[in-house]
Order: sequence, then structure tokens, then C-alpha cells
Amino acid sequence: MTRTLALLLAAAVVPAVPATAQPAPAASAQAYAPLFGAEIDRAKRDVDASIRAGVNVPVPKDPGGGFTHEQHKRNYRTIFEGGQLYRLTGDVRYRDHVRDLLLAYAELYPKLGPHPAASNQAPGRLFWQSLNDSVFLVNAVQGYAEIRGALSAADRRRIDDQVIRPMARFLSDGSPEVIGRIHNHATWACAGVGLAGYLLGDRDLVDKALLGLDKSGKTGFLRQLDLLFSPDGYYAEGPYYQRYALQPFVVFAAAIDANEPDRKIFDYRNGIVLKAVRTAIDVTHDGYFIPVNDAMRDKSLRTEELYHAVAIAYGATKDPAFLSIADWQGRTVLTPAGEAVAADLAANKAKPWPFVSRLLGDGPDGKQGAFVLLRTKTDPSGPLLVAKNSVQGMGHGHFDRLNWLYYDETGPVVTDYGAARFLNVEAKRGGRYLPENDSWASATIAHNTLVVDEQSHFAGDWKVGEKFQTRQLAATLDGPTRYSIAEVDSAYKDVKFRRALLMLEVEGLANPIMLDILRATGSGRHRYDLPLHFSGHIIDSDIAFDRKLAERPVLGKANGYQHLWVDGEGTKAGKARLTWMQGSRFYSYHMAPPAGARFILAESGANDPEFNLRREPALIQRIDGADDATFVSLLEPHGEYDASAETTVASSTRVTALEHRREGAVELALITLVDGRRIAVAIADDVAAGTKHSVMIDGRPLAWTGPVGRFDLARTGAKK
Amino acid sequence: MTRTLALLLAAAVVPAVPATAQPAPAASAQAYAPLFGAEIDRAKRDVDASIRAGVNVPVPKDPGGGFTHEQHKRNYRTIFEGGQLYRLTGDVRYRDHVRDLLLAYAELYPKLGPHPAASNQAPGRLFWQSLNDSVFLVNAVQGYAEIRGALSAADRRRIDDQVIRPMARFLSDGSPEVIGRIHNHATWACAGVGLAGYLLGDRDLVDKALLGLDKSGKTGFLRQLDLLFSPDGYYAEGPYYQRYALQPFVVFAAAIDANEPDRKIFDYRNGIVLKAVRTAIDVTHDGYFIPVNDAMRDKSLRTEELYHAVAIAYGATKDPAFLSIADWQGRTVLTPAGEAVAADLAANKAKPWPFVSRLLGDGPDGKQGAFVLLRTKTDPSGPLLVAKNSVQGMGHGHFDRLNWLYYDETGPVVTDYGAARFLNVEAKRGGRYLPENDSWASATIAHNTLVVDEQSHFAGDWKVGEKFQTRQLAATLDGPTRYSIAEVDSAYKDVKFRRALLMLEVEGLANPIMLDILRATGSGRHRYDLPLHFSGHIIDSDIAFDRKLAERPVLGKANGYQHLWVDGEGTKAGKARLTWMQGSRFYSYHMAPPAGARFILAESGANDPEFNLRREPALIQRIDGADDATFVSLLEPHGEYDASAETTVASSTRVTALEHRREGAVELALITLVDGRRIAVAIADDVAAGTKHSVMIDGRPLAWTGPVGRFDLARTGAKK
Repeated sequence: MTRTLALLLAAAVVPAVPATAQPAPAASAQAYAPLFGAEIDRAKRDVDASIRAGVNVPVPKDPGGGFTHEQHKRNYRTIFEGGQLYRLTGDVRYRDHVRDLLLAYAELYPKLGPHPAASNQAPGRLFWQSLNDSVFLVNAVQGYAEIRGALSAADRRRIDDQVIRPMARFLSDGSPEVIGRIHNHATWACAGVGLAGYLLGDRDLVDKALLGLDKSGKTGFLRQLDLLFSPDGYYAEGPYYQRYALQPFVVFAAAIDANEPDRKIFDYRNGIVLKAVRTAIDVTHDGYFIPVNDAMRDKSLRTEELYHAVAIAYGATKDPAFLSIADWQGRTVLTPAGEAVAADLAANKAKPWPFVSRLLGDGPDGKQGAFVLLRTKTDPSGPLLVAKNSVQGMGHGHFDRLNWLYYDETGPVVTDYGAARFLNVEAKRGGRYLPENDSWASATIAHNTLVVDEQSHFAGDWKVGEKFQTRQLAATLDGPTRYSIAEVDSAYKDVKFRRALLMLEVEGLANPIMLDILRATGSGRHRYDLPLHFSGHIIDSDIAFDRKLAERPVLGKANGYQHLWVDGEGTKAGKARLTWMQGSRFYSYHMAPPAGARFILAESGANDPEFNLRREPALIQRIDGADDATFVSLLEPHGEYDASAETTVASSTRVTALEHRREGAVELALITLVDGRRIAVAIADDVAAGTKHSVMIDGRPLAWTGPVGRFDLARTGAKK
Repeated sequence: MTRTLALLLAAAVVPAVPATAQPAPAASAQAYAPLFGAEIDRAKRDVDASIRAGVNVPVPKDPGGGFTHEQHKRNYRTIFEGGQLYRLTGDVRYRDHVRDLLLAYAELYPKLGPHPAASNQAPGRLFWQSLNDSVFLVNAVQGYAEIRGALSAADRRRIDDQVIRPMARFLSDGSPEVIGRIHNHATWACAGVGLAGYLLGDRDLVDKALLGLDKSGKTGFLRQLDLLFSPDGYYAEGPYYQRYALQPFVVFAAAIDANEPDRKIFDYRNGIVLKAVRTAIDVTHDGYFIPVNDAMRDKSLRTEELYHAVAIAYGATKDPAFLSIADWQGRTVLTPAGEAVAADLAANKAKPWPFVSRLLGDGPDGKQGAFVLLRTKTDPSGPLLVAKNSVQGMGHGHFDRLNWLYYDETGPVVTDYGAARFLNVEAKRGGRYLPENDSWASATIAHNTLVVDEQSHFAGDWKVGEKFQTRQLAATLDGPTRYSIAEVDSAYKDVKFRRALLMLEVEGLANPIMLDILRATGSGRHRYDLPLHFSGHIIDSDIAFDRKLAERPVLGKANGYQHLWVDGEGTKAGKARLTWMQGSRFYSYHMAPPAGARFILAESGANDPEFNLRREPALIQRIDGADDATFVSLLEPHGEYDASAETTVASSTRVTALEHRREGAVELALITLVDGRRIAVAIADDVAAGTKHSVMIDGRPLAWTGPVGRFDLARTGAKK
């Protein structure tokens, strides 16, 4: 190794220079494109402040959010940024400060045992969980690489031998239970260990990172690339962790590409690394990650991981759509890859990111289920129906098979609670997952999918859930009738259920309407609950609710039900409707549940002694003592309220009827609009693409091929 | 009258031309500054669509939000915009469409009686309340004025005699109970009647508008200018209605100025019209009006009224700070005044609006109380403490004497519920004020001020409240110790209370801290409740709450208490604290209430059968059986949570103690910081500016002059 790692990382971008040479001072910041210039300024502010404050490397003590935790995080960022600034400016103050920090760690690190605030996660040395130690190493190696050639041999040896190598040893041989997993914590460990290996010229570390501790390839980075992403680049734990996992994948991949170009790592498994970056961008709405599974709702593409991913992916592809993402981010990274992004963005090379419908197969073979995104516009904040027909997603997975969500220009409309957690807020149990994450956030009733007998899917045992796939039966991603059909037969012992979710574009309606046909088939008598969690203020309903006005009871005892306050219960013959309002838009939810259904209005937040839960509304359709049951529901966004102009249009629904019939082996839904038009949607049990079906409507036969038929019927007669 | 009204309105801006001449086609839209060009494009879209749709002048039927209501609103906008477009383009399609609309009204209007959906407001003819009829006339006259000279004599006569004059007669002689009031509905009526009078050359209408129906000057526009605004330009009903009232004031004032320049209307009462515009801008945070009294929270400077006000005020003053407001609005009006705003904005003449602390005296003499704004930055979204020491504010006033609010970069922190209303949402009782506006939103317990014996101020009778002023005793608007001291002795029979609200800047703290010393002095034994309504998610508290986890009771029976769910009750010896989080910041509320106080955590939304209420948290400090009681509270914003960078700093409070002592005729509060520093704040009962006071602290005398002394005490010793 004669070149520094960071320059190797950047090999595709700038010519390598010998690292032992003093870097030439770069041109003044004015010479950089604005985005990169701002990064340099920001880093200078940070690192200059750190230089003024002096070296502060405290003995580890606090959990997430506490002082020592945050200080060690600040330090690895200072090491990373200081190294880059030294490369860019040649200013020895940066080199010396990074060196002094690392020498302080050389003093401290060898003395450390397991972190005193360790909890149920694998303990680190510097942090309460070893995951953060891995992140430290990934950052520290990248910063150290930029100054290493300019240090005295003694300092270099001290830092190599008392910080970098022992950390890499701790995270590899010292933590087999972490690095040996197929899991994002292991990816971070591999990246740290592998980067350290390349920097130190330690082939043993590199091989362990790539192929596992036994170098068999059964674990390690390459195996993670095989197993953690589906062929479509979807990450099993879901979008929030896909984001989190990306950084070590892309950073380590870039290092592999620079150090071992013959591996052609960016072509590995049909280009899985770059697919993963593209898919990460696709699983957002208005820039925010769809918060299924354990996820913080405030997490967007504006994160460190995505700054790295976009810069590296742009460097590898030169696809100008990445530049529009960088533009939205308003940030980039301090590496040569980031410099290239900034320059091309300033040169107006950006193109909009093409948000389109996607069916992302899940599981290593892509056949264990799917995460389906249906969109009607390429706008990042346009209508989006999400069908979560994916796999369990390991320990961070929720019990929400066949869950659905809806987003549009007003934000999340049909919602996912995300995780019960206040990340990095020390007063909230050190920023860790809260007890309500298990008792509420991951429970089935906290999602928009079927609950049988008040039990979560797989009895709430994720390890059981891991064994069973979801069956994605059919989908159409384009045209006026987009849909997904999926089935799960393992979530409950006696009940299987199938769900068709359709996004219908209708002439004369400004927004798509979302049709949901969920059919449960069971043996024995069951309670079926179908919740809808929504965002907005209730406007009105045609259900006569028995309201709980002056004393508010709790819905149930366990499995999340204990966290729901009851606002009212009611019944309604025929179609029932609830209308709410969010931002400038109205939403009417129309329901044609099985006969005898009741409706429960509820709100999260009961039995929450520490105020850990947000309080959000839900509507539950409930039927008792049924074997089979079909719930037909329709979400209709409508109207516009303009607070500035004080105008309101179409605050009333345009849907006057919603009917359901079973015709042989076909589920038939009939939607009637206020102008008399009707839309018939037929879903055949037989989902084969080529099968011909027909039903009789209004005394005339209507025929179609494949699982879904749609017929827009004029007031008299019908047209296909 | 030989010139059209609109050109007269614009006399200061463009030279007048004879209205009977065909307007010359203006240059293409490209010649206009972007802001004005966009207005022309927007108006063309609207009016062209109206032309395509054809004339639609329905028989009035619906209340606010309903079809006929919205259609008549669309029509007056079309008349206004079509008239302006005809002036700007000379395109006869616009002239003819405006004419045809007005001729259709000439057919309909004479046949109309009181509106069928009239409720408790004075009924209109076209709308459910005559207020909207006034707004119609103000807009219609401005549009009609632009085409009137280009019509046939027969058409002109028909429109004059069957629309404009009868509307003006209905709103003047036909509605003495409206136009004779000192109230914003009357201002709209005066503006409509007066504009019609100028247009028709009808001096009788003009005089009635200016001086009242009997022309005595006891009512009418000039009297409204005398009585509705305080000398500081504050409008008695509060910011929301100040905004609403502005449009007729500025539009009619501009017309008076153009038609009767000798009146020097913009100089009237020391320039009250322009003061009112400036004050309207000052009573906002981040562009949104402070929602005291009946107010919609989503109302901002981005409204039609303020587009007019800013354009006319800029025309009258050329103060470049108005341009920065227009820039934030992103809109202007289609008049020559709007054209000038757009041109100067495009020429980069804008200067930032200087948001500073203000004491806005209330009442016609400015001595009936005050609306106090304390700011530490000129940034529109910077820290802002509001002390509502103003008068009742008529029927839209809330029972909230000495209420306070706090805003900063995260938005509203200490909040006002505003109005219980869904403006223009027909399903919510036609968009009118809801029953919960009286039962909750206007009640004292819904505000951050003292409630005695669970009764609202003035027993909830606004007409009684109108008779009593608030006493603004002292204030300091600048320096590190900004404050307001006020008193009210009429809200309760047996109890008077005084409140000092201070905004303290403290070295080493990134944000100001807000100290609140509220002293009630009563005869007899009372229950004193001091609520705090806040926005954010509860993080933690050192109060041991008895939580209502599985069944949620209601706090009380009446006066707003019936709308509060109880989440918990608790006690704490010494200082108590509640910490919440909003956006990126933490807020700790420290309390040193009287001994024996209890703390109640509650949430609005109980006894709300129609889901008309938002659900928002409140903390109540309660003491029972007391005669006198002093509540000392401190709001401390602190820390920063960064979701993108996953960092958190200072999530813990920096305040370790808050003590209260009464020393003779002085209230003394002692704040201790985590680093050992202490801040002593002394408030003398004697608020005279020149009086000298002293107290003993730590065995040494500390002396000051005037009502407030502040002493920053180092760990040992003291410095002033």
C-alpha cells in the first residue's frame, strides 16, 4: 500500500498522489462549487472549534445521548473532517489535531473493557453498543488515512497499534457474535475492519471482513451482499434500516473497488450495491423514508448515510438524477466524490429523480414477498400507496403482513406508527427502543392490517415470523388501475387472508381512489379487526357512534389493545363513512364490511406511564364470530381548503355507494359516484395472468383476462 | 366624477386617464416584474375559466362553504379581476364577462329577501351574513369601475340602479344595525357603501359611509378609525380580526385619498391607517398571526387583506421594509399599487422588516391595557413572548386577561387554542363558530392565566368584560431583562391579580428564559388554577404523577373544565419540573407554586360529541383554600436534537433551583444554574419608575430603582 485509503476511495474521481508527500494547499474555498464550499466551511467551523476546545477523550460512561457518548461521536467526526481538511488545505493544524486526538485514544483504548452502560445489545468499548464502535472505526480510518503518511513513524506506529488495529481486532475476532451475523451491525463491523485492513496493509483483516472470521465466505461482507438485499436492492429490515445500512456498504464497496479493482465490486450480484442506493431513494415520500418496522418518522434523505451513498453512486454511474437528490439534500460529503457532485450540480447537470411505481421483491431470491409502491406521479410528494407484503425483517420487523399506507401532497394519510423511541434523548431510556415499541408499535393492531382474535401475527414472535414468507400474487404498476394482490397463510393458525389494494384513477376526480378488498378465510369462529390509522382531524361520519364523552375506557388487555383509548363504538347498515381533513384536503373512508360489523373509534396513548406514545387516531372495523369475512374499503381524497384565500371546494364526498358481492370465485366491488357513474372492480381468486373470467352486472356479462377486471359503467349501459 | 375609481385609487402611482376612453392594451406580461406578471397570469386563468364556464349567478341558498356561497365569492373575485385585466390588456372579453355577470346580478338582486341560511348574524341577501355582502360590494365596485366607462348607457344604468345602488342602500339605510356599529362588519359595510358612492357620484352614500347614517360622525368610517384602533394601531378584537379589518380600512382610505385628497386621510389621527398596517405585521410570528381571541391558527400574512394593505402602505410610504413582506407573501394585488410593489421588489429595493419588541396600548386612548410583544431578535421566527394585557375585544374576545404565549424557532411553544371553528367547512356547522368556541376556546381555563374557583373571568360574560380595562403597569422592551407588569382587579369579585412576565437573556444560555411571577390577592378562600398550554411531546418530569392509565376521567363540570381529560395528578415538594420536546428543542417548565400545590396533567377533547376540538396538552398548577397566592414559573428552552445528524446536546435542564420569597413589598425569585451561578429577580409592588428599593440576599443588600431589579450572582459574591 503506497496510497492513502481516502485517495484510493476516490480513485475514480481524482488522480492518486503519493500520500507521504505533503499535500499541496488547495485553492481557496471560492474555487469550489457552492455545495462543496459550504461543506468545507462547515467542517472548518467544527474542527476549528474542536481545536480551540482541545482534545477531550473522556472515559466512556454514558448511554446514547449522554455526554461521553456524544463526545466520542464528535471526536470521530472531527477525525474524519480534520483528515479531509488536511488533504484539501494542507494546513498542519488539522493534521496535528487529528493526530493528537488519535494519540489520546491510543492512551485510552487499550485500557477499556465492556462499556458500563451496556444493555441488551452487544457492548462496545467506547459506546454502549459495539455498533457505535464500528461507526467510529469507519470514520476514524477515513480521517486517519489522510494524515498517516505525514506523521512520524513513532506516532504512526502508536496509532496503528493502539487504536486502529485493536479496534479492528475487537470488532472482528473479539466480537464473533456481531461480525458473524447477517445483519447491519455486522456490515458496519466489516466495513470498519476492512477499511482498517486496507489502511494497515493487513490482508488478514481484509479477508475476515470480506469472507467472515473463518474466511469461508459463509459470513462477511460478500455474504451480506448476497443475503441482506433482495435482487431489487430492498433491505430486509425495511427503508429505515436500508438507509442506515447503506453507508458501510457503499463506503466499503468504494474502498474495495479502489484497492482491489479486479473484484469489480460494483458489478457484484448484478450491481447490487448501486441497486440498493436507488431503491433507498425510491422508498421515500417527499424525501422521508416510509417508516415501516422500527423506524423514526423524521428520518429523511438528509442524512450522513445518504450523502455518502449519493456521492459514491454518482461517482460510479454519473446518472444526473442523483444530482437532484443531492440538491434536495443541500449537503454532500467532504470527499473527492462529494466535490464532483457539487461541481456537476453547479453546472446544472441535475435531472429529476424518476419516482415510479415499483414492486421490490423481498428475500435473497426476491420471492419471499414484496414491498410494493404504487405512484401516479413522478413528483416525490405525489400520491403513493404502499403495500407491505414483505418478509418479517428480523428483530426490527413489525407484525404487519399485508399492511398498507397512503401518502400524498398533504403528507402521510394512512399511517404507520413507526418505532416507539426517542433517538438520542437520554431521558427516554437513553434513547433506546422503549417498552412500548414491543407492546404497541410492533403489534398488529398498531397497523392497517387484519387482526384475528386480538392476537398479533405469529403470536408476536418475530423468530417464528422469520420462517414464513408472504405471497405476492399479482401486481400491475401502470395505467389507471394499478394494484397489488398478496396473501399470507401463516400469520394465524386457523386463518389465511388475501388482500387486493388498488389505486384507481377515475376521469373527473382530481385524486386517485384507493380500493381495498381484504378476504379472510378461517376455520372456527373468530373476531376479525381491521384497523385504519390515519392522520387528520375528524370532520364527520354517517356512523351513529356511542361516544365515550366523559370517561374514556381502554379497548383491550394485551397485544397493543391496552394502548387504545376508545372514543366511540357504533354500527351502520350498508356503506359507512368517516371523513377527516389534513392540510388542504379532505379524506373520506368508505366501508362495506361484513354484515353485523361494528366500528370503533380509538386513539393511541392508554397505559403509557412515561408518556412514550404519540396520540393518534384509528378506526377499527370489527366482526365477531365469523369464519370467512371480506372487508371492502375505499379511501377517497377530495376537495381543497385554502386558508389564505378562504375558499373550500368539494368538501363532500363524490362516492355515494360502495357495494360488495361474491360471485362464484370472484370478489366484486361496485363504486357509485355522485354523478351516477359506477365503477365495477372484480378480483378473481385465480390470479393467473392468462385466465379468462366474467361476471354478470346489471344483467349483462362483463369479461376480462387475469386477476383484475375493471368496468367503468355510465349511468346507462357500460363501457370497458 | 370623470375618472374611474380604480384609477383614482391608484392616483399616487400612475397618471389618471379618462375612463371613457378605451384603455390601451398594455405591454405583454413579460414587461411586468415577476410578482405582478404572476398575478396577471393567475387572474387570466381564473377569469378565462369563468368565461368558459359561463355566467353562473345562483339563487342564494347555502351557508359558508356551500355551493352558492362559494359561487358568489368566485363571482366577486371574477368581477374584480376581470375589471383589472380589462384595464391592463384592453381585451373586451374581460369587459364583456364582467358586464354579463353584473347584469345577471341586476336580474337577481332586486328579487332577494333575507338569506335562507341566515343564523345569529345579521342576514345578507347573497350570503348568510351581510358581512359577505359587504365584501362582495367592495370587490364588485373595484372591478366594475374599470369597465363602467366602456359600457352602453343602458347597461351602465341597469348595473348602477339594480346592483350597486341597491346593495349600497341595503348595506346602509337597509342595515342600520350593522353599519351603525363600531365593529369590523360595519367597516366593510362603510367601505362598500363609500366606494359605491364615489363611483356613482352619490354624495349621500359617501357621507353616510364616512359619518354614519345620520351624518353626525357618531358612527361611520371616521369614527371607526377613532375607536377601533388604539393610538398604536392595535385593533381591539386582536390580530386575527385586525388582519380581517384591514382591507376595508386601507382600500376605502386609498379611495378617500384619491377622491378627496384634502381630507389627508393617511394623516388622520396621526397616520392611524398606516400604523394599523405596521402593527398588523408586528403581531405575527413567522408570518402567522398570534391567535388570541377568536382566531384561526392557520392565518398568515399570506392573505388577500394583507396583499392589499402592503401594496397600499408601500404606495403611501415607499418604506422598503414592506417589500420584504411582499416577498414573503409571494403575492401582490392586481392594482397599480401592486404593480409598483412588484417592480421595486424586482429592483432589489427590499429591506428586512424590523421585528422589535412593542408595547401596543389598547383602547381608543391607548390606556385600557396593552398587547405586549417582547422579542430578542429581529428574525420573524425568533423568540417572542406575548403578554395579552389588552381589553376584552368585544364578542370575539376571550376571557384571558394577563394571558401569555411564547414562540420561537420551533413554532408556538406556549400556545393559545384560538377559535373552535373550521372556517368554510360546511360539515362543521356551515363553517361557523362551533358550540365549543364558547364552552372551551374562549373559557379562561383554555388559556395560560389565572382561574379562580373554576370560573371564567367576568363569569364568562363579554359584555361585562367590555366595561373593565386591564392595567398595564410597567414594561421594558430592550436589554437583557425585558418585562411587562400588568394587573386586573375586575375579572373576579373577590380576587385581583398581578403578573410580571420577564424575558431574561443569560450569559452562556443560547435561548432567553421566561420568568413568570403571578400574585393573586383575594378575600375569602379560593381555588386557584394556573394552566399552561404547551406544544410538544412530554419527555419527563420530576413530579410523581398518579397516572390515569386505563380510564380517563374529566376534570370538571363546566366553564371549559368539562373538556379536559385528566392524564394524571401529582405533588412535589420544592421546585417541580416538566420537560417536553418540540422539533429540535427541549423545553423545561420549572414551577415554584405556593406550598401545598398540586399539578394536573390534562388534554383537551373531552365532552366533544362532534370531534370539534383539537387534542392538546396542558399542565395546571392548583392550590385550594387560599386567599393570597403567588405562582413563580420559569420556561427554559434548551438543547438541540438533530434528526439528520443523530446528535443531541443539552437535553437536560441547566436550571437546578427556582425559589420564591416575599420580602416586604417585593416579590423575589431566585434562579440557580447548573454551574452554580444565580440570578435574583426582584419585583416591587410599587411600580413607579423612580422609586428606590432594596432586598437582602446572602446577607448583603442589593438595591435598584424602578419596579424590577435583576442581580446576576456569581458562585461567590454578586455583581450587578
